[in-house]
Amino acid sequence: MKVVVIQGPNLNMLGMREQHLYGPMRLEDIHQNMAEVAKQQGLEIEFFQSNFEGEIVDRIQECLGDADGIIINPAAYSHTSIAIRDALLAVRLPVIEVHITNIHAREEFRRHSLTAEVASSVLAGFGPFGYHLALIAMQQILNEIARLKTQEQKV
Amino acid sequence: MKVVVIQGPNLNMLGMREQHLYGPMRLEDIHQNMAEVAKQQGLEIEFFQSNFEGEIVDRIQECLGDADGIIINPAAYSHTSIAIRDALLAVRLPVIEVHITNIHAREEFRRHSLTAEVASSVLAGFGPFGYHLALIAMQQILNEIARLKTQEQKV
Amino acid sequence: MKVVVIQGPNLNMLGMREQHLYGPMRLEDIHQNMAEVAKQQGLEIEFFQSNFEGEIVDRIQECLGDADGIIINPAAYSHTSIAIRDALLAVRLPVIEVHITNIHAREEFRRHSLTAEVASSVLAGFGPFGYHLALIAMQQILNEIARLKTQEQKV
Amino acid sequence: MKVVVIQGPNLNMLGMREQHLYGPMRLEDIHQNMAEVAKQQGLEIEFFQSNFEGEIVDRIQECLGDADGIIINPAAYSHTSIAIRDALLAVRLPVIEVHITNIHAREEFRRHSLTAEVASSVLAGFGPFGYHLALIAMQQILNEIARLKTQEQKV
Amino acid sequence: MKVVVIQGPNLNMLGMREQHLYGPMRLEDIHQNMAEVAKQQGLEIEFFQSNFEGEIVDRIQECLGDADGIIINPAAYSHTSIAIRDALLAVRLPVIEVHITNIHAREEFRRHSLTAEVASSVLAGFGPFGYHLALIAMQQILNEIARLKTQEQKV
Amino acid sequence: MKVVVIQGPNLNMLGMREQHLYGPMRLEDIHQNMAEVAKQQGLEIEFFQSNFEGEIVDRIQECLGDADGIIINPAAYSHTSIAIRDALLAVRLPVIEVHITNIHAREEFRRHSLTAEVASSVLAGFGPFGYHLALIAMQQILNEIARLKTQEQKV
Amino acid sequence: MKVVVIQGPNLNMLGMREQHLYGPMRLEDIHQNMAEVAKQQGLEIEFFQSNFEGEIVDRIQECLGDADGIIINPAAYSHTSIAIRDALLAVRLPVIEVHITNIHAREEFRRHSLTAEVASSVLAGFGPFGYHLALIAMQQILNEIARLKTQEQKV
Amino acid sequence: MKVVVIQGPNLNMLGMREQHLYGPMRLEDIHQNMAEVAKQQGLEIEFFQSNFEGEIVDRIQECLGDADGIIINPAAYSHTSIAIRDALLAVRLPVIEVHITNIHAREEFRRHSLTAEVASSVLAGFGPFGYHLALIAMQQILNEIARLKTQEQKV
Amino acid sequence: MKVVVIQGPNLNMLGMREQHLYGPMRLEDIHQNMAEVAKQQGLEIEFFQSNFEGEIVDRIQECLGDADGIIINPAAYSHTSIAIRDALLAVRLPVIEVHITNIHAREEFRRHSLTAEVASSVLAGFGPFGYHLALIAMQQILNEIARLKTQEQKV
Amino acid sequence: MKVVVIQGPNLNMLGMREQHLYGPMRLEDIHQNMAEVAKQQGLEIEFFQSNFEGEIVDRIQECLGDADGIIINPAAYSHTSIAIRDALLAVRLPVIEVHITNIHAREEFRRHSLTAEVASSVLAGFGPFGYHLALIAMQQILNEIARLKTQEQKV
Amino acid sequence: MKVVVIQGPNLNMLGMREQHLYGPMRLEDIHQNMAEVAKQQGLEIEFFQSNFEGEIVDRIQECLGDADGIIINPAAYSHTSIAIRDALLAVRLPVIEVHITNIHAREEFRRHSLTAEVASSVLAGFGPFGYHLALIAMQQILNEIARLKTQEQKV
Amino acid sequence: MKVVVIQGPNLNMLGMREQHLYGPMRLEDIHQNMAEVAKQQGLEIEFFQSNFEGEIVDRIQECLGDADGIIINPAAYSHTSIAIRDALLAVRLPVIEVHITNIHAREEFRRHSLTAEVASSVLAGFGPFGYHLALIAMQQILNEIARLKTQEQKV
Repeated sequence: MKVVVIQGPNLNMLGMREQHLYGPMRLEDIHQNMAEVAKQQGLEIEFFQSNFEGEIVDRIQECLGDADGIIINPAAYSHTSIAIRDALLAVRLPVIEVHITNIHAREEFRRHSLTAEVASSVLAGFGPFGYHLALIAMQQILNEIARLKTQEQKV
Repeated sequence: MKVVVIQGPNLNMLGMREQHLYGPMRLEDIHQNMAEVAKQQGLEIEFFQSNFEGEIVDRIQECLGDADGIIINPAAYSHTSIAIRDALLAVRLPVIEVHITNIHAREEFRRHSLTAEVASSVLAGFGPFGYHLALIAMQQILNEIARLKTQEQKV
Repeated sequence: MKVVVIQGPNLNMLGMREQHLYGPMRLEDIHQNMAEVAKQQGLEIEFFQSNFEGEIVDRIQECLGDADGIIINPAAYSHTSIAIRDALLAVRLPVIEVHITNIHAREEFRRHSLTAEVASSVLAGFGPFGYHLALIAMQQILNEIARLKTQEQKV
Repeated sequence: MKVVVIQGPNLNMLGMREQHLYGPMRLEDIHQNMAEVAKQQGLEIEFFQSNFEGEIVDRIQECLGDADGIIINPAAYSHTSIAIRDALLAVRLPVIEVHITNIHAREEFRRHSLTAEVASSVLAGFGPFGYHLALIAMQQILNEIARLKTQEQKV
Repeated sequence: MKVVVIQGPNLNMLGMREQHLYGPMRLEDIHQNMAEVAKQQGLEIEFFQSNFEGEIVDRIQECLGDADGIIINPAAYSHTSIAIRDALLAVRLPVIEVHITNIHAREEFRRHSLTAEVASSVLAGFGPFGYHLALIAMQQILNEIARLKTQEQKV
Repeated sequence: MKVVVIQGPNLNMLGMREQHLYGPMRLEDIHQNMAEVAKQQGLEIEFFQSNFEGEIVDRIQECLGDADGIIINPAAYSHTSIAIRDALLAVRLPVIEVHITNIHAREEFRRHSLTAEVASSVLAGFGPFGYHLALIAMQQILNEIARLKTQEQKV
Repeated sequence: MKVVVIQGPNLNMLGMREQHLYGPMRLEDIHQNMAEVAKQQGLEIEFFQSNFEGEIVDRIQECLGDADGIIINPAAYSHTSIAIRDALLAVRLPVIEVHITNIHAREEFRRHSLTAEVASSVLAGFGPFGYHLALIAMQQILNEIARLKTQEQKV
Repeated sequence: MKVVVIQGPNLNMLGMREQHLYGPMRLEDIHQNMAEVAKQQGLEIEFFQSNFEGEIVDRIQECLGDADGIIINPAAYSHTSIAIRDALLAVRLPVIEVHITNIHAREEFRRHSLTAEVASSVLAGFGPFGYHLALIAMQQILNEIARLKTQEQKV
Repeated sequence: MKVVVIQGPNLNMLGMREQHLYGPMRLEDIHQNMAEVAKQQGLEIEFFQSNFEGEIVDRIQECLGDADGIIINPAAYSHTSIAIRDALLAVRLPVIEVHITNIHAREEFRRHSLTAEVASSVLAGFGPFGYHLALIAMQQILNEIARLKTQEQKV
Repeated sequence: MKVVVIQGPNLNMLGMREQHLYGPMRLEDIHQNMAEVAKQQGLEIEFFQSNFEGEIVDRIQECLGDADGIIINPAAYSHTSIAIRDALLAVRLPVIEVHITNIHAREEFRRHSLTAEVASSVLAGFGPFGYHLALIAMQQILNEIARLKTQEQKV
Repeated sequence: MKVVVIQGPNLNMLGMREQHLYGPMRLEDIHQNMAEVAKQQGLEIEFFQSNFEGEIVDRIQECLGDADGIIINPAAYSHTSIAIRDALLAVRLPVIEVHITNIHAREEFRRHSLTAEVASSVLAGFGPFGYHLALIAMQQILNEIARLKTQEQKV
Repeated sequence: MKVVVIQGPNLNMLGMREQHLYGPMRLEDIHQNMAEVAKQQGLEIEFFQSNFEGEIVDRIQECLGDADGIIINPAAYSHTSIAIRDALLAVRLPVIEVHITNIHAREEFRRHSLTAEVASSVLAGFGPFGYHLALIAMQQILNEIARLKTQEQKV
């Protein structure tokens, strides 16, 4: 079972920018924590960050036939990218969207997420811990899918 | 440490209504699971469901001085109740808002949540498992608050 | 066969308030007329009025497994209550929505009915006689359903 | 006492088009049923269908001094025709607007009816049976008017 | 002469919540002050607070034939409750709406008051002193009405 | 020099309908007055009324090469007909739009005129006298055009 | 009988600015023409131009008890001034609003006139000749009023 | 195989009006070209133009059971006619909508086509050549349908 | 202690215009009443009325260092003047905005007040008595400020 | 003569994703078909696909002085990219925009195309066959341009 | 060469009001600096400040034939004054609009400037230094115009 | 002291495209001029142009700790890129946004700049000279910052 974690624009600046909003943790720290959890879960995990909408679309497409689930924080592109939305629809994998801050409590233009509309589920406002929760949830989803497949095969 | 779980209108119908949307689990099942998890976490937990906006406001107010955190699924009232929003603001406790379905992918009028604007964090689309995640997150938040208080006292 | 008639806020004031809009008839008079018609139709009938959104949600939920059809005038809550709308969806019974006045010809905010979107059919502007029409229509609907069920059983 | 039934565009296709929406009944069947009911009621009745906005305006104008009430289903023109609306205002007769489907539960542009704003009352979502209800209601309205006139003459 | 003071949701939290917005005074203190002023004015006065929209509708309806004027702070329900608005219209008494803060200077959704549209007059931003002003104004209105009635009787 | 006067839907009802809005004058009276004025002006004049959008489009098209100016009151079609607007654009004649009432002071949907956007000039709120003014203005416009043509020919 | 002609901001620039829009005639020329016509009509006439919203309000107020009708071109203030609108309402005289260009065919923000909503009638797009038409119409209105007054006195 | 070509309002003016927008070709020329192409394709073809919304609805309805495909340019009615839209839905034939100009690059109100929403496909901005392309596409569609039918019959 | 009372456009017409809306009292009467009350309160008071936005801005600016509080009825300018709003912000004095009628119950464009957003508090719908209430409130505010200043000095 | 075909984001997934919407054909198949047609037409042709907005802008710019026409399917970027729109404007070549599905019949946000506003013409809903039609149309446009150039040179 | 500097409402309060927004510099200081720079540039310069929309319109009109360029900060009137916009259009001089603060980062209603739409260029957020930049830019523009005129004269 | 100049999409086409809008100057010319000015100012300067949103985000991030100020013309991305906006916020340097044309006077969608909301100041409509002004302003800003730092160190 393999999970791909995709981080959108400016998330490589975590811990460096606007700490009152995003906290002091750096992206590497978050990824290291996730790697440890995934190891315990028996999940393979890969990390990807890009400031390019196109690279994110490419990376999502590569998940087709290669990954079993996607955890994505499209950041600024959540609110403007139909291309990422279309890519997520195309690969038809379980997708969990994570936002570090509570986007419902921020600027008007951050309240609507085009990509959340096609995700399976959404987490917002848990800080870096949100990624931890996303992994737990992803494992539960993958187990459920596996269970259903086994069930079908028996039939 | 005590957590109050507040369930909004029609959630008492879970497992009975629209199972294609909300799944086959009943509200009691969800609460039983939560009670077990809370026990393991060492958290006291209380459950409350009402179809009345006013009762939910009352229950939130009673949390003042009595509870340490609120997990709430305001259901239909998320989108219309300024009164519940005001009550959440008034008690100033950590609040996690849970939605069983992904509200971002449903009717237009379900996409905007007045109460989410004043919550600490929001979970949507994880099914009943969302309540489990909310409890894990709440424990982490309460630990963090406790740690900060101890730190302050040392100073 | 049992029909429940649910009357929303301020309808208990009928005959007392704004007679130029709602006419001189009191709610009891309307219900008495309906009771007589129902008797002739061989329909059991129950009446309920409340100014509480929550009580109306409760009453709708109780119809599940107890009633065969709902005639509802949600009055002011037609335009604001997603909770009542959700309750009507949950019980999946035939629902006829009645408005005494022609809501299409009144204030802008009375023209859109959230609950009418989930009702089977809608009547507006017939005055108290609208409840009479609703009963006739309900009988026709219940007969049709009974006929279909019998048909199925034969097969 | 004479009632004119006016049917808007595409209603001549009933029973031929989109049966999942409009049912299997043809317009002639509906009119035949109405004719029988009207006979029992002692009402004279005339039927008219047109796909032309202008013809419908003409037909409404001809009701002035010739008919006592109008039952109209303006179909698509409900949502766009100020001309039909103006004609209905000009003749100042009791008008009952009928919609076969529940327009509140369909496309956004079908939810607002310009003509319903000037009708006496509105029926939607009862299928062909709605015309039956409209006739019953029309008789009640005409009786009421007759009663008031007699009362006035006595005075 | 009797005045009923109706307080909407969360106003029972005054002095406990958000003091930077609403000040340190508790609701009892405000009511005690009003009671003293009313005594001097020779006005009978009653107080009512509820977090339930339905209870507020009930209480307003009870004013019919029992009270001479209403001072109301519908709080959060000002912005969402057509039911309270309808109740105020139904009893047709002088109504003064009070808001402790200046709602024109707060969040967008607090700037429009559905109930203020049917009130006689509105006060906002005077803090608890606004209730004092409302009582003075109410007395002046009741005196004026009494004067007009006496005048009529003389004629 | 020939002027065509085109009257839109329901204007044939003038003097019969809503006299408080449109006055007691019938359309024939207005046209007779215009005919007399036109005679004095030495203008040929033709009158046309239709409730059909298509007939009005046809009549406008026939003006091409046959008439020198159009006086039009598109009535209800002013607000909805792109087809009449396109026809007016196509014939490229001087067009004066007349409205009997002041459309700026009526219902919201009567304030915007699609056809006025392509007319040369617009008159509203002068009652039947507006047609008189339109004729005077049309003569002035036609004289001016004639003067310019003569001037060109001299060059 | 006295008519006051009120010209709004920048109309003193006529003949000097944007001739492709407003033509080569200066304001004095227009006023001189009007003066001659008024003389023939037996009407007293006064002219006033200002770039100040406040001066226009003042001048309108002075018409109370002094003038019998107002011809006004509020120019830019048509679209923004509630103060001029209120002043026109306050003096309750016949008001004809004139626009040199066809405002319906210009920028979006010029299509809505706040003052036209309270005028008796509106003329747009006739160039300077519009003032001539306005005078003719004003005379007809004043004659009509005079005729009605005489009629009343006879009774 | 038979194709019906339906031309909306003012298209009979092609080659006569606004040549900078629509080019110098007349409607007959276009139809003659189409007739020749259809002959080569072995398709029967019929042409129809009307300025009447109702006639277009009639003509579309007649296609039911008589034609295999519709090529339509609803012109001005594209943007306002729900009746034509409903007729197209009712006959359930392949529909290609053609616009001579690129409606996306014109006035705001021309950018939204109600009829295009129910067409199979849309062509805009190819000038008269668009009709040629539409015929080629229609043939391809009809061939595909024929192929599928044969396939089904074999099964 | 000095209070300046600023009256906006057309308020000099009070008692002369639209008495059904604004009552029979003239502005001088209101000011005389206020002067008497102020005398009893020991407050210095000055009155100012203007139809000019610019004069009102000037007068507000002059309050800086000269007055202790402003009572203002910006009338029509409430809804359009950012300049008056900026001036009120600039002088940073306590500001009470008064409206004679209940602006919440009037035309749409009167419901939003740009100046109320920067006022301390707002009164609407009390008729001329609203100015009386404003003075009482102003005295209370000024006393409170004085009390706070004394307190500070003691510290 | 050279044509460049530019394919936007996710079109490389054709045949792999959402086949119910886009069909089973892969992008290579479409391009191979186009290459064959182009060969017959004597047109040079180049293909380009990218998920990057910036790469598409680059590729369009390279067409300047190198290509004679552009066939583009900007896919998701149609609705959001002003940059691609600006690039198309900058190179001033004939541009045909192709959409595989009928964008008028899909989600609201897909109905408005920023790039279609600057294209010469638009094709939507023909499936992969749309590219075939686009090539035919492009040849016709290029021939027409060549013919006009030759004509000019003769003069 | 002469430049007129026009300052809108409340700018005379600079240095006195809201220093956190506008800085400590007074308007005289800014003008003195500009006068010195203009002297070095060899430009004649005049300053004008008013809180009256009408006076600003007057002053702009006087520039016709008297000045060569206008530097204007319309302040609050930027967002509401069509009259000032019309005046700027009428004089057809180079206009540079200056805003001390960055209006794009302030309240919603300050983001749209009606006057900026007719200015040549706009500067915002440079503080008082923006006037300095405006003068440098104005000189460059006037030089360019002079150069073009000389060039023309040579031809 | 180092300034980075960042040029958005299509600016590499300057001098080649739409010269009536953007003038004949090429980007290299502009940059060469800027380099000379910067040399005189003693400022280090670097230039960067990209059509990629992601590259621009990258380049802005690299300024952190490397540059002292940013001059940016985000061109088309001004209106759509939340990612660039977030990057500018993250580096917290002085930012001057430059637009060659006056965006306030162009298409509706160019009037709102997401990036200008987070810039320090904005320049629009000065042509290439705007970059010159931006450099002058930047130097002034950097001097001011240096001055403040020195001051702090002294303390």
